[in-house]
Amino acid sequence: MGDGRQIGARKPRREDARLLTGRAGYVGNVRLPGMAHAVVVRSPIAHGRLVGCDAKAAWTVEGLLDVITPAEADAVRLPCVTLAAGQRHTSYPVLDEAVRYVGQPLVLVVAETPEAAADAAGLVDLEFDELPAVIGIERALDPGAPLLYPEWGTNLVTDSVLGDPDCDEAIAGAEHVVELTFGFGRATPHPIEPRGIVASFDGDELTVRTSTQAPHHVREHVAEALGLTQDRVRVVSREAGGGFGGKEHLYPDEALVCLAAMRLIRPVSWTESPGDRLVATLPARPAVHRARLALDADGRFVALHADVVGDLGGHPSNVGISPFSVTAITLPGPYRFDRVAVRLRGVVTTTTPTGSYRGFGQPEATWTRERLVDEAARRLGVDPVELRLRNLLGPDELPCTTRTYQPYDSGDYPRALRTLRDLVEPPAGGDGRRRGIGFSCHVEATGLGPSMAMKATGMLAGGYETAVLRMEPDASVVVSSGVAAMGQGIETALAQIAADRVGVPFERVRVVLGDTAVTPYSSIGSIASRSLAVGGGALTQAAARLRDKIVAIAAHRLEAAPEDLEFAGSAVQVKGDPRAALTFREIATSAWRGWDLPEGMSPGLEERVSYDPVAYTFAYGAHAAAVAVDPETGAVEVEGYWAVGDSGVQVNPAIVEGQLRGGIAQGIGMALTEEIVYTDDGQPVTEYLLPTTREIPDIHVVMLETPSPITPGGMKGAGEAGTIGPPAAIGNAVAAALPEIADRVTRTPLTPEAVWSLLTHEPGATG
Amino acid sequence: MGDGRQIGARKPRREDARLLTGRAGYVGNVRLPGMAHAVVVRSPIAHGRLVGCDAKAAWTVEGLLDVITPAEADAVRLPCVTLAAGQRHTSYPVLDEAVRYVGQPLVLVVAETPEAAADAAGLVDLEFDELPAVIGIERALDPGAPLLYPEWGTNLVTDSVLGDPDCDEAIAGAEHVVELTFGFGRATPHPIEPRGIVASFDGDELTVRTSTQAPHHVREHVAEALGLTQDRVRVVSREAGGGFGGKEHLYPDEALVCLAAMRLIRPVSWTESPGDRLVATLPARPAVHRARLALDADGRFVALHADVVGDLGGHPSNVGISPFSVTAITLPGPYRFDRVAVRLRGVVTTTTPTGSYRGFGQPEATWTRERLVDEAARRLGVDPVELRLRNLLGPDELPCTTRTYQPYDSGDYPRALRTLRDLVEPPAGGDGRRRGIGFSCHVEATGLGPSMAMKATGMLAGGYETAVLRMEPDASVVVSSGVAAMGQGIETALAQIAADRVGVPFERVRVVLGDTAVTPYSSIGSIASRSLAVGGGALTQAAARLRDKIVAIAAHRLEAAPEDLEFAGSAVQVKGDPRAALTFREIATSAWRGWDLPEGMSPGLEERVSYDPVAYTFAYGAHAAAVAVDPETGAVEVEGYWAVGDSGVQVNPAIVEGQLRGGIAQGIGMALTEEIVYTDDGQPVTEYLLPTTREIPDIHVVMLETPSPITPGGMKGAGEAGTIGPPAAIGNAVAAALPEIADRVTRTPLTPEAVWSLLTHEPGATG
Repeated sequence: MGDGRQIGARKPRREDARLLTGRAGYVGNVRLPGMAHAVVVRSPIAHGRLVGCDAKAAWTVEGLLDVITPAEADAVRLPCVTLAAGQRHTSYPVLDEAVRYVGQPLVLVVAETPEAAADAAGLVDLEFDELPAVIGIERALDPGAPLLYPEWGTNLVTDSVLGDPDCDEAIAGAEHVVELTFGFGRATPHPIEPRGIVASFDGDELTVRTSTQAPHHVREHVAEALGLTQDRVRVVSREAGGGFGGKEHLYPDEALVCLAAMRLIRPVSWTESPGDRLVATLPARPAVHRARLALDADGRFVALHADVVGDLGGHPSNVGISPFSVTAITLPGPYRFDRVAVRLRGVVTTTTPTGSYRGFGQPEATWTRERLVDEAARRLGVDPVELRLRNLLGPDELPCTTRTYQPYDSGDYPRALRTLRDLVEPPAGGDGRRRGIGFSCHVEATGLGPSMAMKATGMLAGGYETAVLRMEPDASVVVSSGVAAMGQGIETALAQIAADRVGVPFERVRVVLGDTAVTPYSSIGSIASRSLAVGGGALTQAAARLRDKIVAIAAHRLEAAPEDLEFAGSAVQVKGDPRAALTFREIATSAWRGWDLPEGMSPGLEERVSYDPVAYTFAYGAHAAAVAVDPETGAVEVEGYWAVGDSGVQVNPAIVEGQLRGGIAQGIGMALTEEIVYTDDGQPVTEYLLPTTREIPDIHVVMLETPSPITPGGMKGAGEAGTIGPPAAIGNAVAAALPEIADRVTRTPLTPEAVWSLLTHEPGATG
Repeated sequence: MGDGRQIGARKPRREDARLLTGRAGYVGNVRLPGMAHAVVVRSPIAHGRLVGCDAKAAWTVEGLLDVITPAEADAVRLPCVTLAAGQRHTSYPVLDEAVRYVGQPLVLVVAETPEAAADAAGLVDLEFDELPAVIGIERALDPGAPLLYPEWGTNLVTDSVLGDPDCDEAIAGAEHVVELTFGFGRATPHPIEPRGIVASFDGDELTVRTSTQAPHHVREHVAEALGLTQDRVRVVSREAGGGFGGKEHLYPDEALVCLAAMRLIRPVSWTESPGDRLVATLPARPAVHRARLALDADGRFVALHADVVGDLGGHPSNVGISPFSVTAITLPGPYRFDRVAVRLRGVVTTTTPTGSYRGFGQPEATWTRERLVDEAARRLGVDPVELRLRNLLGPDELPCTTRTYQPYDSGDYPRALRTLRDLVEPPAGGDGRRRGIGFSCHVEATGLGPSMAMKATGMLAGGYETAVLRMEPDASVVVSSGVAAMGQGIETALAQIAADRVGVPFERVRVVLGDTAVTPYSSIGSIASRSLAVGGGALTQAAARLRDKIVAIAAHRLEAAPEDLEFAGSAVQVKGDPRAALTFREIATSAWRGWDLPEGMSPGLEERVSYDPVAYTFAYGAHAAAVAVDPETGAVEVEGYWAVGDSGVQVNPAIVEGQLRGGIAQGIGMALTEEIVYTDDGQPVTEYLLPTTREIPDIHVVMLETPSPITPGGMKGAGEAGTIGPPAAIGNAVAAALPEIADRVTRTPLTPEAVWSLLTHEPGATG
């Protein structure tokens, strides 16, 4: 099992050397001979039909190479991987004359230079028949609303129920019921590296350099969109400078760039502009939850029900309803409930299709549940922490399966909350602002798999991961995995596992990721906090097999029984006898040259192991925020933030804590400032405010470490944990600071304007 | 076993599409951002010491980036893979102040442009202490000759004996003994694509784009030379526009370019110039054989002895003595001998080190043996073909092991010669030229392996090959192999095997070669006529395993026993029931997504099989040439050429015949025109004359097809066959045309000057 000194060590991240010195391979820096540049012409209207598209003026621009209109990309469609019950869309066109959101791609222009492409794009003359926009979930469900797909007769894409059929009954019979309607603003991931792609085609093979979380997924969708076999598509993602879910898809604009490369037989480059990002990169989270929490006379949770309606935008995206499904299935959180049920609906609106964003429905579930809990505590006059402790599942109750069928594996949820309570130090007041502290608890599904369960839920993908672990002839070690690096430190973590489990120095391990020609197949890539839990699990198993082969070769050559051997540094020796030893290098050279191997053993020293988890593994955490609200302006400041998390075995605690801090910063942004806002006629009017260091306080993180009983190595996922707790903790803190409006603190973001409106308007009035 | 229609088909070569349309990825066409250009400053003297090296003037050239002198590359050495008994060299420096041949690299100059690099190279001021040259084997062995390595006390590198200790006795007691001393001119491979390299270093990984037959070999030597671990070196060889053995090594100039890339941390490009080629690319074959053939009264071969001395040049190269060893071990050819023995020596001379060239010692062995046979026939008054038929091993005598320990596996050597005799049509004469027809027979060791036998002969490499065979989720098929493409059509041949054995259309198979980050490890790569025999053998085995997995999945999903299933096109069905069928695509999608697989089966559909042959497999052939000699000028014209070959199962007969024709053209060049000639003071004075279409007649090829009992699939090697027979057949034809000088036709090339000298000078006199 290695020397045990690598796993758990706070190794500096090895990827930082290149990231911090400008040597990282970002897509925007790729220069290929003959590379052309693309610009996407997007719809300026929210709803209607493109009836004219004239590129004559564009062709006057010197250096223009190609103009692709909807008519010329007729057959190019992208598939949806996740299909909800009743969903009619299984794919969608990359260019469509039917316009359903501002920013929808309509034309791709390619030219010798970015400037020429931009000039030509500005000269494409578009003519529309315009239709009324449909903005907001309530409007979409309004029987009188315009229909995005008149042939359906409705804007409703899917409608299903989950959980206990008698949940309503249980609520009706309960002592206390808290019912509130919650909303979540439309947030969007903002990786440092924008989306980008360089596609090149040599007449046979299409090579796609792109910033993605899921190279094989991109390969599959590129092949399907362009009618290529998968062997002819190579997807390379050297780095992805942040993913956050926004880079788990292949986007229409990216598919168009591939099409252009094939038409021109030359490389074509495209990078998302800030304007593109707000209208063309999938945002997430817009939903309305009408939710009810029922309690008995002792404050024990009896039942929980939510009516969740998700806004899918102009059409179901690649992931479609699934973020909202995850809201539904994770709704119960770490608590004991007799009954839970969710009605789940998705609607189309004339807005950018919605997709994945770090947390994937779980911040929303936590917001709704934890706000209900605090409101119940307020109404019952119980301390919110006490109310939680009364209802949290105890460690002796695990493993258990929730009423929404989630098999919680391990952990100590009350301990997390108690640890958190002891950490919190209320900030000093005295400046006229109103202060409150809020708590939230969550359980997080991590380590997506198993493959068969994913299939059962309508997901057209598998959930296993494959690790390739090779000891080269000179005993250097190469790890190759289908999971993708996106700045999260997976390269370092995998190197630590390999070094530890094989028994070589960390520096001798190389990690290779993100190239479908090189790295093993991964159906869905680095999403769902699964890279380390599943990819690292596969690597852990591969290392055990590699050690077995090393021992078998050594036993053969030393003429000893395997059980009489021991590892001693980077060597194998007869127990206690360093003179009867072989170095890893000697063994590896033998293995690769096919020399002196046991009868029937294959040469080489490479193991390739696929690990398909038997189930999710469940991380969890408890968060607390201290806020100060300026009653004059409604401005909320987060003065203190504390998080206790448990993501199982920590391979690199520094990385885990960094993941948490980063996620919490995003959570603070979602709670307070970030939202894409549409006018009623479908125009995005957004000053999208990311939090800066001014908005982010010191974040105190304490990690518990309950090994997962599911994954080899005991790791759980840590990538999304940070985003899940903050909106709820901050919402609860604001409600605690402003008890007079507590039951109206139901929607994110809690901008100054929103809070000020709550403070100055009566309930039911609109601002 | 597939539909059987792909193996044996004359498929057009798929690589030709890109080779013929200018889309091939030659190294000289690689353009990388920031790429610098290197020029090598070479020694103008043959022997001495570099005592001054002043680059001050060179640094005045604008754009100069680096100058690497011997002092700055002190630790950079290249290893020798093949070590002869007693060989003191196990490695050699890439830059050495001790000069031992004209063309030895002394300084590497790197600049922004090729022109600046050339200008600066011309301004490097070198000063030498000169020593007398040592040219020619006789001179090297002369006790009074200067010593290249005075510390050795000799120019002899190795001296060993092989075969029957009582061979001399047998010769002494024989009825007839023919003794002649043979020589072979120093020939050099001339691939269409010159050697070239682009090295780039990102501070961590060194990527080497080069034209090589053996990417992993280059990787190993680059890593060793530059002190990198192998995982940090990636070698990519997209095409090699011809190899012929000259590209199986890493050369000092290439290692220096890698060093420069690491020093500059930017890409550096270098391409061999025609001048470089003649002094810096390893030539081959210079040797002297004093050889004796003994026969009994009935003309039966009793014994064969050769005293082989090979010219190693300035130091043993990567392959060192081994081409001359192969001369020794293949000396007996297809004949029955009671006794065979060889004394094998290697000497150093002040010439470019010698290495591999297509045929690797076997044309020389064949020249010596077959010339002895014809001379014996002449002296005994027997028809040369009859004499051969009397002594050829018959098919009922195979398998058998020669007196030089070669385990011949299968074939019908007499049939080849009889078939050939029936083909030959003597050309008309009547133009005053003297005409003759000559024959030669050979057996060729192909399919180099097994690994353990290679180790036993002192070769620091393994001989197995690994095939990776993957069916992608959409049922497209990818083959990856460690063997390298160098224009020989291996890509097409492997695709045919995969298509046939898996049962998919040829067009659905993609072959990936030549990238150490992608393709499986191959210790020695595409040398020794082994790519198809060993690499194709591994692929054949992998295909069988892939079919087994396809059937196992289908059986599970169709709930049938595997033995009740059958293949039907690209599908598997219950025997006779097309309704109970699954397409390959359905099966592959299942396999990759991890869906519906038998208990315990790994997901994916990829097989990785290593095949280490139990022995060489032996191809063979018989060649005939008809020549016309102009007695006035000595000019030899080959008027007709016929070859009968047997390389086992032919995957693509068109490729096999093409290989033979190309090799025969090279053999004609070696026989008649090609030689690197040195003056006595070590200056190469060479007009190196490659044969053109004027010198190459129609070549008639007939292939027999005796499957190898050794290799899976029955293939033997065909890559070198063409080069082995021509010099001997042409030499015999010249001797037949000019019986008065027949016993002096002992040296290649038979240039007009050489033949004219033989015709006009008495034996023993020198021209």
